[in-house]
Amino acid sequence: MKLTAEAKGTFAIAPTPFHEDGRIDEASIDRLTDFYRGAGCDGITVLGIMGEAPKLDGQEAVEVTTRFIRRAKDMSIVVGVSAPGFAAMRSLARAAMDAGAAGVMIAPVPSLRTDDQIVTYFKQAIEAIGDDIPWVLQDYPLTLSVVMTPAVIRRIVADNPSCVMLKHEDWPGLEKISALRNFQKDGSLRPLSILTGNGGLFLDFEMERGADGAMTGYAFPDMLVDVVKLSKSGQRDKAHDLFDAHLPLIRYEQQQGVGLAVRKYVMKRRGMIASDAQRKPGSSLSAAAKAEVDYLLARLARFDGRAAAA
Amino acid sequence: MKLTAEAKGTFAIAPTPFHEDGRIDEASIDRLTDFYRGAGCDGITVLGIMGEAPKLDGQEAVEVTTRFIRRAKDMSIVVGVSAPGFAAMRSLARAAMDAGAAGVMIAPVPSLRTDDQIVTYFKQAIEAIGDDIPWVLQDYPLTLSVVMTPAVIRRIVADNPSCVMLKHEDWPGLEKISALRNFQKDGSLRPLSILTGNGGLFLDFEMERGADGAMTGYAFPDMLVDVVKLSKSGQRDKAHDLFDAHLPLIRYEQQQGVGLAVRKYVMKRRGMIASDAQRKPGSSLSAAAKAEVDYLLARLARFDGRAAAA
Amino acid sequence: MKLTAEAKGTFAIAPTPFHEDGRIDEASIDRLTDFYRGAGCDGITVLGIMGEAPKLDGQEAVEVTTRFIRRAKDMSIVVGVSAPGFAAMRSLARAAMDAGAAGVMIAPVPSLRTDDQIVTYFKQAIEAIGDDIPWVLQDYPLTLSVVMTPAVIRRIVADNPSCVMLKHEDWPGLEKISALRNFQKDGSLRPLSILTGNGGLFLDFEMERGADGAMTGYAFPDMLVDVVKLSKSGQRDKAHDLFDAHLPLIRYEQQQGVGLAVRKYVMKRRGMIASDAQRKPGSSLSAAAKAEVDYLLARLARFDGRAAAA
Amino acid sequence: MKLTAEAKGTFAIAPTPFHEDGRIDEASIDRLTDFYRGAGCDGITVLGIMGEAPKLDGQEAVEVTTRFIRRAKDMSIVVGVSAPGFAAMRSLARAAMDAGAAGVMIAPVPSLRTDDQIVTYFKQAIEAIGDDIPWVLQDYPLTLSVVMTPAVIRRIVADNPSCVMLKHEDWPGLEKISALRNFQKDGSLRPLSILTGNGGLFLDFEMERGADGAMTGYAFPDMLVDVVKLSKSGQRDKAHDLFDAHLPLIRYEQQQGVGLAVRKYVMKRRGMIASDAQRKPGSSLSAAAKAEVDYLLARLARFDGRAAAA
Repeated sequence: MKLTAEAKGTFAIAPTPFHEDGRIDEASIDRLTDFYRGAGCDGITVLGIMGEAPKLDGQEAVEVTTRFIRRAKDMSIVVGVSAPGFAAMRSLARAAMDAGAAGVMIAPVPSLRTDDQIVTYFKQAIEAIGDDIPWVLQDYPLTLSVVMTPAVIRRIVADNPSCVMLKHEDWPGLEKISALRNFQKDGSLRPLSILTGNGGLFLDFEMERGADGAMTGYAFPDMLVDVVKLSKSGQRDKAHDLFDAHLPLIRYEQQQGVGLAVRKYVMKRRGMIASDAQRKPGSSLSAAAKAEVDYLLARLARFDGRAAAA
Repeated sequence: MKLTAEAKGTFAIAPTPFHEDGRIDEASIDRLTDFYRGAGCDGITVLGIMGEAPKLDGQEAVEVTTRFIRRAKDMSIVVGVSAPGFAAMRSLARAAMDAGAAGVMIAPVPSLRTDDQIVTYFKQAIEAIGDDIPWVLQDYPLTLSVVMTPAVIRRIVADNPSCVMLKHEDWPGLEKISALRNFQKDGSLRPLSILTGNGGLFLDFEMERGADGAMTGYAFPDMLVDVVKLSKSGQRDKAHDLFDAHLPLIRYEQQQGVGLAVRKYVMKRRGMIASDAQRKPGSSLSAAAKAEVDYLLARLARFDGRAAAA
Repeated sequence: MKLTAEAKGTFAIAPTPFHEDGRIDEASIDRLTDFYRGAGCDGITVLGIMGEAPKLDGQEAVEVTTRFIRRAKDMSIVVGVSAPGFAAMRSLARAAMDAGAAGVMIAPVPSLRTDDQIVTYFKQAIEAIGDDIPWVLQDYPLTLSVVMTPAVIRRIVADNPSCVMLKHEDWPGLEKISALRNFQKDGSLRPLSILTGNGGLFLDFEMERGADGAMTGYAFPDMLVDVVKLSKSGQRDKAHDLFDAHLPLIRYEQQQGVGLAVRKYVMKRRGMIASDAQRKPGSSLSAAAKAEVDYLLARLARFDGRAAAA
Repeated sequence: MKLTAEAKGTFAIAPTPFHEDGRIDEASIDRLTDFYRGAGCDGITVLGIMGEAPKLDGQEAVEVTTRFIRRAKDMSIVVGVSAPGFAAMRSLARAAMDAGAAGVMIAPVPSLRTDDQIVTYFKQAIEAIGDDIPWVLQDYPLTLSVVMTPAVIRRIVADNPSCVMLKHEDWPGLEKISALRNFQKDGSLRPLSILTGNGGLFLDFEMERGADGAMTGYAFPDMLVDVVKLSKSGQRDKAHDLFDAHLPLIRYEQQQGVGLAVRKYVMKRRGMIASDAQRKPGSSLSAAAKAEVDYLLARLARFDGRAAAA
């Protein structure tokens, strides 16, 4: 089923599982997909920045995508297709949709500076991939160094009817959610799903500002699902209590450069993937770091039974 | 008393208090200084990035510095003297030491790239200010985009006997602390105080990796003091319990762009300063953001009585 | 006399002359000023990027400015007042105008990204320095990494009646001059002087696109004056012949990192300044580089008698 | 024949010719290849930055490469294989060598900062593609923002026996050539071919500093060939006379953002390619810019008969 502006809930950003020797671990793709379904996720995003997408060649990217889609059944699969050029972006986007993806996700190239350059880039990208593919606009200035104001996002959404979702990870970004929701109240912006990233670091308040859910890769997607639900049902304190219990680990995962290693290590401990190997150039955890994560998991287990099993 | 490589404990990064109309609020400098002493701080760092230093002209920088020093009595005052050029750096450094500062802090200019460029920069900076001034090396890649390996830090320390402290805020940085401490164990690095920044976001583990304390501006310096002491005395769980209770607010303060506004808002609520005004270009908090901070303070108060008074 | 939107001709970007030991060489300021007048320059810009402005402390900046102004007589002096903060910008701008400057020049801070951030920055800067000071907008993306579209420049000019000139050094920038002149034709932009920088590398065509003159620091300002005049009087081939003869040296000066060393070396050979010393951190020329410049000057002398005397 | 450290002369950086509708123009690949041979080029570099490489998908990249190789006969073909990840780099490198390429060219990814990061990156890249492929190290800080000191280049060359050539386009870079040649004199660096880029802007002096030739894409490769030969045979003044005649156009081509459009326009006028079309996002020349290039060509024709035919 294709992605629409009504999408909500939790989309897990999936890592790409590798064997120790660097080959893609297809069995772990299945295991991971099943875990996400069991956790209550509504969708999975593959080949994102945390999916080590640039380390796959073109054929592997399609194979990984296809494997996730086949196993996902009723969950929606969003495929990251950001690329330095439009030919590769188009190839992957068309292949992903042919394989049954719900939509694709596009981030701006880091060289964009002015408002007009940004708007033009997305217009050309959609010309390249075709305007029949629902797509997610990724807004991630901290890593991509491209800054989009709410007004620029509104221009992009107006220009491109196939844009149905914002993956919000500006930082700070709470006011941006409010600004976009205000645009919708005053009628200047059409409906748009907003899922939030940033490793979940601000999910508690993002939900309260009007986000429709989470799209991030924290190693406890079950917690994301629960916080999103608690928040939507108005159980504010309970949502924060659960969120705060996880915050020490969320914070630890947030370290650029080793974040993915932490995440894969926890996922391996939880049985979500068989190995925490990354393709080169990758990062790995020292013994000291592993002990720190173990300590955080032990503390978390006092509050959240799911951590006890990790 | 001059800063030495034996320095430890908690150094608060002080904001510069302003009146609503942008004038420097000297009475609040005194109030803030007294608060830091009461909280158990060992030192205060003034004119850092969070001190809005570039918004002061040369004369104001000296006045602010002098005011803090006079009131600080037995606390050590470190003065940020980073500047685009060495003439201004020297002027402020000499004036600060004449006024009784314990030492100065120097960050690299953002244009530095190669290891040799970085090492040369600090050699020239110390030639400019004089090698009789104890100084703190600020290592803050996230904001300054200059990346120093542990080996480069070792070269800088070896080149400059007046370098007595590292303000550590690399991110991720836990392994860097371990690497530097290992250099000291193998005899290749002389004693060096390491205080950690990053708004305190990793203080819990930084202490366990070998940091000597904290140098950061979180609005509850009393918590920093306590976590440093608990960690040093081996009360690991208690240190983490206290730290984790503050983490939701630490995390909220961490948002680049509004972090200082959050910090000044909380400091005003706690009576540390009279106004949370910033000089332009500054940031401010929306009503929604203030309500979020208020909520975090209310939750914190359940755990930490000091927050209740805020 | 204050700078207006009718300004035209050649404004030399002056280096700051130093003695070998780093002290400011005031006698060379006079000599340089006299040289510029003799060469036919209409104005001088001091404390620009090539003026090593960040290496001066606040008091020195005022002294250098004042010395130039006193000697300049009927030439207009523009003072670079770009600073990381508005307090220092205001101090220098007011002091410069009190001393008799014609106007000031302001560049954006490198952190600005979105159109709105840029526009807001200049609005706040002018609030800070006062709207009674004529000022030059410096547009220099290559070095400052801030990209202003023609439409953004138009907004800035519309917002700030005291903005009278654009120092144009976008790269590529020929189309930008045409775009701005077209805005004036269609009535959407008021009169604005456009002087071009970039070391003169594109002066030949910039004049033909509608520039009012040059504002740059090439070591032969007499050539700039002549090319501007030849171009304005319609002697196209003659303008290009003279320009092309200088291009090998202009190109050599263009090397970021050693450009200022080349420029000061040639100026010293021409008797414009006593020493080519720079304050640290500075660059210097190897023996091989000096021989290359000497060779270029010898070749140039075959065409332009002024080089023969160098 | 595989590339060796003895390589010298002129390697043309080839653009990728497209039809007006964006399809690859294979006939123009042949025409261009024949032109390069007729001009006396020793090799051709394909899929470089100016070859719009990121705009091709993986299959197209192999097709373009193969077409050039088949037509090139005795000329060496170097293939740019820089990629965000090693899987794509390996795929293209192996395919290129299988098709008969002489070697590949690798640029660092822009995120590298410290000396060690740079050295490690190339070690891992060569592990990925295999150490049996001769490769060219591309050193292009202006565009890639990665700065390699001569000592770092020496480390990379020492680590990787398959590194046989440096594509030098640091800016300023003359001293770097001298430094590397001095390393070879003192025995600390093994033989290494150095070909220079930067659009040819400093070729005159680069040859005199010890370069082995040119590797750049200026639209008159015949001039590059002649300047390299004149310089090598000690005819210094003649080399500079020819170079200087082309400098106004070289300079015009140097404008980032429109440089490729200028180059393709001149190549089309010279009959080297059928269309000057670029794939999106691309640049194009205004009527004014075309007239400027025509004027430069007319002026050049007075000196160099080859331009007359353009």
